[in-house]
Amino acid sequence: MKHIINIEDLTVEEINQIYNRASEFEKGIRKANHLKGHVVNMFFENSTRTKMSFEMAENKISANKYDFFADTSSIQKGEDLFDTINNLSAIGMNVVVMRHQDNNLIENLSKKSYFQEISFINAGSGTKSHPTQALLDFYTMKKHFMDLSNRTVVIVGDIAHSRVAKSNISLLKKFGTKIRCLAPENLTGEKIEGVEYYTSLKEAFEEADIIMALRIQKERIQEKIDFDEYIKNYQITKENLPYAAFLMHPGPVNRDIEISSEVLEMQNARTILNQAKNGVYVRMAVLDTILNLQGL
Amino acid sequence: MKHIINIEDLTVEEINQIYNRASEFEKGIRKANHLKGHVVNMFFENSTRTKMSFEMAENKISANKYDFFADTSSIQKGEDLFDTINNLSAIGMNVVVMRHQDNNLIENLSKKSYFQEISFINAGSGTKSHPTQALLDFYTMKKHFMDLSNRTVVIVGDIAHSRVAKSNISLLKKFGTKIRCLAPENLTGEKIEGVEYYTSLKEAFEEADIIMALRIQKERIQEKIDFDEYIKNYQITKENLPYAAFLMHPGPVNRDIEISSEVLEMQNARTILNQAKNGVYVRMAVLDTILNLQGL
Amino acid sequence: MKHIINIEDLTVEEINQIYNRASEFEKGIRKANHLKGHVVNMFFENSTRTKMSFEMAENKISANKYDFFADTSSIQKGEDLFDTINNLSAIGMNVVVMRHQDNNLIENLSKKSYFQEISFINAGSGTKSHPTQALLDFYTMKKHFMDLSNRTVVIVGDIAHSRVAKSNISLLKKFGTKIRCLAPENLTGEKIEGVEYYTSLKEAFEEADIIMALRIQKERIQEKIDFDEYIKNYQITKENLPYAAFLMHPGPVNRDIEISSEVLEMQNARTILNQAKNGVYVRMAVLDTILNLQGL
Repeated sequence: MKHIINIEDLTVEEINQIYNRASEFEKGIRKANHLKGHVVNMFFENSTRTKMSFEMAENKISANKYDFFADTSSIQKGEDLFDTINNLSAIGMNVVVMRHQDNNLIENLSKKSYFQEISFINAGSGTKSHPTQALLDFYTMKKHFMDLSNRTVVIVGDIAHSRVAKSNISLLKKFGTKIRCLAPENLTGEKIEGVEYYTSLKEAFEEADIIMALRIQKERIQEKIDFDEYIKNYQITKENLPYAAFLMHPGPVNRDIEISSEVLEMQNARTILNQAKNGVYVRMAVLDTILNLQGL
Repeated sequence: MKHIINIEDLTVEEINQIYNRASEFEKGIRKANHLKGHVVNMFFENSTRTKMSFEMAENKISANKYDFFADTSSIQKGEDLFDTINNLSAIGMNVVVMRHQDNNLIENLSKKSYFQEISFINAGSGTKSHPTQALLDFYTMKKHFMDLSNRTVVIVGDIAHSRVAKSNISLLKKFGTKIRCLAPENLTGEKIEGVEYYTSLKEAFEEADIIMALRIQKERIQEKIDFDEYIKNYQITKENLPYAAFLMHPGPVNRDIEISSEVLEMQNARTILNQAKNGVYVRMAVLDTILNLQGL
Repeated sequence: MKHIINIEDLTVEEINQIYNRASEFEKGIRKANHLKGHVVNMFFENSTRTKMSFEMAENKISANKYDFFADTSSIQKGEDLFDTINNLSAIGMNVVVMRHQDNNLIENLSKKSYFQEISFINAGSGTKSHPTQALLDFYTMKKHFMDLSNRTVVIVGDIAHSRVAKSNISLLKKFGTKIRCLAPENLTGEKIEGVEYYTSLKEAFEEADIIMALRIQKERIQEKIDFDEYIKNYQITKENLPYAAFLMHPGPVNRDIEISSEVLEMQNARTILNQAKNGVYVRMAVLDTILNLQGL
């Protein structure tokens, strides 16, 4: 596990090891001291929680953190990103945490022969992959349900443009969880094997243990969306949210679109903040594992 | 003192406690080690000295500091600032240092029930409040005069748009200092009880112990200002500055508008730099106090 | 050596002292602990490797680092940079690392009487000076050749707009190295004493020990450049690169303009990354020396 690029690359054993470590960090029984580790955060797309969560994880394991600003970097002078990474590696960076709008760039960078000493963590690539988000989502579910193999997760909303959905589906499949996707047809995207598709909220929510709402990725959607229609049929409200359901959302929520404000103020919306909280421990575990493999 | 939002909320006793602590930091007889404290700086308005001063204070008490950039945050995806703060709190931030153009937003955020574990420090809110600036200004005066109760402070310039003036007036009133405001009518703003208003520099400067010039807040002023007229009547020059007066300015100075360059090069302009220097100790004291209250 | 502004200001002895220290850092036999040192990075021009290299050097000597963003600073409110620096000094900054498009501004700032306690490191000034780049380039050459006094260095490309070329020429002259400049006439600039000028690559490369390609500074060049003509006559290719030559480039490379991609993938292009790597040690040595002189 030199890099974390896609959930597909991780074995169940590796994931469980990350979770054991995350849990030790959460309980305060593990400390990591990476005073010699250098981690650069390269976010080519806007971010608050993922970036801040990585920064906090980096501080909590005592790594040195760096902010790479594309706008004031040599990329503005026309530098190739491959050359930038080569240089960061030469300077002594150990880990690149990267978010990029391209589906495959981070993966391609990680495969280039030059960077043999630098590890990549994908912090969100296009509409394809967001592995640490899926890891923290599943960690949050596991803390609540222990065993997810007999549970049903409903993923609701803009599946088509969601890297979060895709990484979560990959991860849930590894652990035998039943997966339902609920979305209007134009937001369903390409169908994935092993997933049940619904267009009716009522049917999808029947016997649901976990409901994971997704953000409508307005910034990625070309065609016009009929928000009134979406809200009428798919918004999660006090009336349609099953009493015992565990409500999740990767954030940021478009208030009163995916979830009503009323539900967001309710107790079970706190899970959403628990996701954020757990993210720090999961990212500490990922960084700690990768830096350990580099002998740090 | 969970938050520092407005000077009005602080008692004389709390202010004196902050000053004792600031003084101990200044003398090097107090050390604070907040390796577990996480402070995020959220500046929605331009800043050099306040932001850098907070950053240095955070480093000097060994807290972990974070930079929040509104331009590359999820606020660009339409996220509500309340949700952003909820998330930062969930991630583990202990203190938000915020500057914002809105007069009341920071106060409103600090009152929202969610953020029970996070403290706010107002680093400048609209034209209303800038409490740490007033605290450092008064700390600077106290170091020079010890007792301010029989002294006269003249605040000169753009009172109307100045949060610095308003917070200083609140603070000076608590300690029984005589306050004069000197400004042309269009920059005087709403009159405050307990303050004497002047339009003649000559009269206002009579028996003045301290002269606090303010920056003309060009960026906040809609109407056209007649700078020639302002300079003629209100610029502080070698000729009109009383010999023994203690000259202050919160910075940045508009050179040759509020104060002549000639005066700025004189010895007593050094007070302006002492304000900057003292600001670090006062902010260390504020952060240390707040983090202590959080058990850190 | 309170400041590092231009190579011309440094003696051979001072340079050798910096190299001894850099070498000790590189071998891991020197540690520096500047927990009380505060260094602010002020980059008014785009940068990746220089900025990141300084940041890593600052972390490795355990200094406190600060990022100054001109775009969100009080410079936007019209503040004079002299006043900004005065304030940063008052707040407690020990070192300013500055890159600026103006040829002389950093030098002028460093000479102003106010800032008696603050040191300046020039991280690139206009088209005139880039002393730490020259220091790391020569350090890289010295590690390979030991003695440079009988060697020949060919500097190829956009000499006219290159601060790297100018600082390198100054440094090489101090150590008695033979210097050739190879460029088309419009990129040659003002001729410097003690340098041999060539327009023919074939002639210039004869008996060359080191070939230092420069980046064509597109962002500084007003007139139109005929890139096809440049490539035909001056691009370094597998065919024209002498077998034993030591190839250098300050980066970022304009791929397939100054150097062919084919050459960049070859083993001897690794020197370019070694330059980046050595830069960290040289900058650690510079910062450590300057902070030591401040008693830190």
